[in-house]
Amino acid sequence: MINVAILGYGTVGSGVFEILDTNKKLIGEKAGQEINVKYVLDLRDFPGDPCESVLVHDFNTILEDDEVEIVIEVMGGLKPAYDFVKKSLLAGKSVCTSNKELVAKYGAELIQIAKDHNRNFLFEASVGGGIPIIRPLNQHITADEICEIAGILNGTTNYILTKMDKEGADFQTVLAQAQELGYAERNPSADIEGFDAVRKIAILASLAYGKSVDFEDVYTEGITNITDIDFKYAAAMGKSIKLLGKCKKEANGIVASVTPRLLSPSHPLFNVEGVVNGILVRGNMVGDLVFIGSGAGKLPTASAVVSDVVDAVRHLNIPVTVIWDKEKLELLEFGKSRKSFFVRVEGDEKDKIEEAFENVTYIDAGIENEIGFVTRPMSEDEFKAASEKLENIITRIRIEE
Amino acid sequence: MINVAILGYGTVGSGVFEILDTNKKLIGEKAGQEINVKYVLDLRDFPGDPCESVLVHDFNTILEDDEVEIVIEVMGGLKPAYDFVKKSLLAGKSVCTSNKELVAKYGAELIQIAKDHNRNFLFEASVGGGIPIIRPLNQHITADEICEIAGILNGTTNYILTKMDKEGADFQTVLAQAQELGYAERNPSADIEGFDAVRKIAILASLAYGKSVDFEDVYTEGITNITDIDFKYAAAMGKSIKLLGKCKKEANGIVASVTPRLLSPSHPLFNVEGVVNGILVRGNMVGDLVFIGSGAGKLPTASAVVSDVVDAVRHLNIPVTVIWDKEKLELLEFGKSRKSFFVRVEGDEKDKIEEAFENVTYIDAGIENEIGFVTRPMSEDEFKAASEKLENIITRIRIEE
Repeated sequence: MINVAILGYGTVGSGVFEILDTNKKLIGEKAGQEINVKYVLDLRDFPGDPCESVLVHDFNTILEDDEVEIVIEVMGGLKPAYDFVKKSLLAGKSVCTSNKELVAKYGAELIQIAKDHNRNFLFEASVGGGIPIIRPLNQHITADEICEIAGILNGTTNYILTKMDKEGADFQTVLAQAQELGYAERNPSADIEGFDAVRKIAILASLAYGKSVDFEDVYTEGITNITDIDFKYAAAMGKSIKLLGKCKKEANGIVASVTPRLLSPSHPLFNVEGVVNGILVRGNMVGDLVFIGSGAGKLPTASAVVSDVVDAVRHLNIPVTVIWDKEKLELLEFGKSRKSFFVRVEGDEKDKIEEAFENVTYIDAGIENEIGFVTRPMSEDEFKAASEKLENIITRIRIEE
Repeated sequence: MINVAILGYGTVGSGVFEILDTNKKLIGEKAGQEINVKYVLDLRDFPGDPCESVLVHDFNTILEDDEVEIVIEVMGGLKPAYDFVKKSLLAGKSVCTSNKELVAKYGAELIQIAKDHNRNFLFEASVGGGIPIIRPLNQHITADEICEIAGILNGTTNYILTKMDKEGADFQTVLAQAQELGYAERNPSADIEGFDAVRKIAILASLAYGKSVDFEDVYTEGITNITDIDFKYAAAMGKSIKLLGKCKKEANGIVASVTPRLLSPSHPLFNVEGVVNGILVRGNMVGDLVFIGSGAGKLPTASAVVSDVVDAVRHLNIPVTVIWDKEKLELLEFGKSRKSFFVRVEGDEKDKIEEAFENVTYIDAGIENEIGFVTRPMSEDEFKAASEKLENIITRIRIEE
């Protein structure tokens, strides 16, 4: 029997507790021994809840108990999670976490501490919820140079964009609906501004290239400027709009971004709709691999956390190989990366558009008093320079190859 | 440095050789040490080929060389693969294979021999080509009871069905095209009769439930009876036809099959087209996980083989946990499993149809001199009994929920 402690009894924490109870026998067989939740840490009380008999309020109870071999951190945020996780690892306990903020900021350091102590720091649930993506990157896609990762990494924004697409609704209406249904938080900025997705793509890029990608270096744009008119043009082009977290190996290095993109039906993520997440990994040998599933939610996320616990039990004194060095990966300037742009301009002056952008393809979506067009492939910097020649640009959306 | 030997220099074997050369540095970093191909075994000679300097014709050269720690079996078939693999394991070498026939028939035994010798028998490439599915089942989906696995597991048949769907072509025409393009073999029966897919679903079911599923117990039907007229009805229903390998946990046990199925657009595998493979795993906690990628082809399959080699190097003296017991898993009788059926009947006698099947839903695809309809959900046995009341059934296709 192995003793574990759960830090945080919120959505994911209570999910972990529930799964370890409901699937106890099966999980014990998979792990090779029974897993016993010795403590649940939370500041709150939960009278009548099944966790009550193991609930503690002081982290030191867990830290100082040598019988606890695995700590499950599902509190979220950096404080006090970072402190608790680091102390746990230093005390010779393995840690499994769902905390993308923690992993994005301190991943390399915590992996190293775990390794130094022959323990594991595992974080499958930090990206893509229940979808296996961290473990495939670490343990499966090891024969390939990774050319590209593109992911729909945030269920809230994908839900909003799908609703706008299917129902022709505007952003604010759908956001309000999503908040009512609990798919979006009251303060939705982490989701709709791309702050959630950018941490996730930074984690995936760090694992893909073995060095630390600072999420603050990644160009990030959310979906707040996407309108129902944009979706009319998208429909006219037969495309859909998705918020894509991307990293891509180019000739001179890695470029990374989080931006809304227009996707063709042939793109592997075109059909990933609603709160579902989807991740494309493109290898130089294996080609395209696509992983789809629930990117959030109590039980899917908790399932991934428990899969890490099983892995930690199987590798009690053996660090699982995770290649993610502290050395910073310097990303290529986003301004140099190339693509075509869809642009909307007020008025009807095609001559000015062509003067600024040369060859363009006009898109007729039946919208009056404006012109929609697609540019040739150009760098972000070139696009910016050309854009400055026009005074009446309404919006632009990048086109995914 | 670790020495490996490749048994068989066919499509996959030469792909493995190529990947270990092209991505040598990267793979060495992932594995923790350089991987050196000390031998390639093949009966043929390959004058001028890069493998020439390490080519041998006698398996004993490899078997008796203690420096060879990992054997890569990519010959296919049971003879002499089984003998070579077993001897390699008994000699204390780990084995990585892409051989679905070998794994489907001797998986449990070979896993046990490997375990007894503190070595590994790994077979990621035996199902789904380059798609990670074996490792996710063994190492990721460990917190869930697996409710269902459904897979498009054969690229040849999916290519044929997709062509028939999109182009309205008939089976024989598309099969001939596929043979010309090298997507189907001259003797295509292993693919089109479902013999390939049934071995793959047997492997997945064995891993999902931890006991040996005998592929000969799995009800298997290929795609040879599917016609262009069937696709007209499918279009009228808004569905597509896919060859699905399935295993499903029902109240009394596991039911498994390989059959053509009508899928709705909401099914996660509806959009998996062409030679691509897709696998849905449904867990009782994580919900639906979908894995999509190249199910065959030289480099994708070889990529999965090399990922096993990396895993074997990382776990040189540590058996990776694979739970697949020799004990046979007795499947539920397929006759008891329930679903709706789409049926085509000659003539126009609706009264006879309703006498035999009670409530049915008629499908109008504009085909003359026949009637198409969908039954209520019923067991295979009930369907058979009802069918016997009609003398003029043209065909029937199962409807996937």
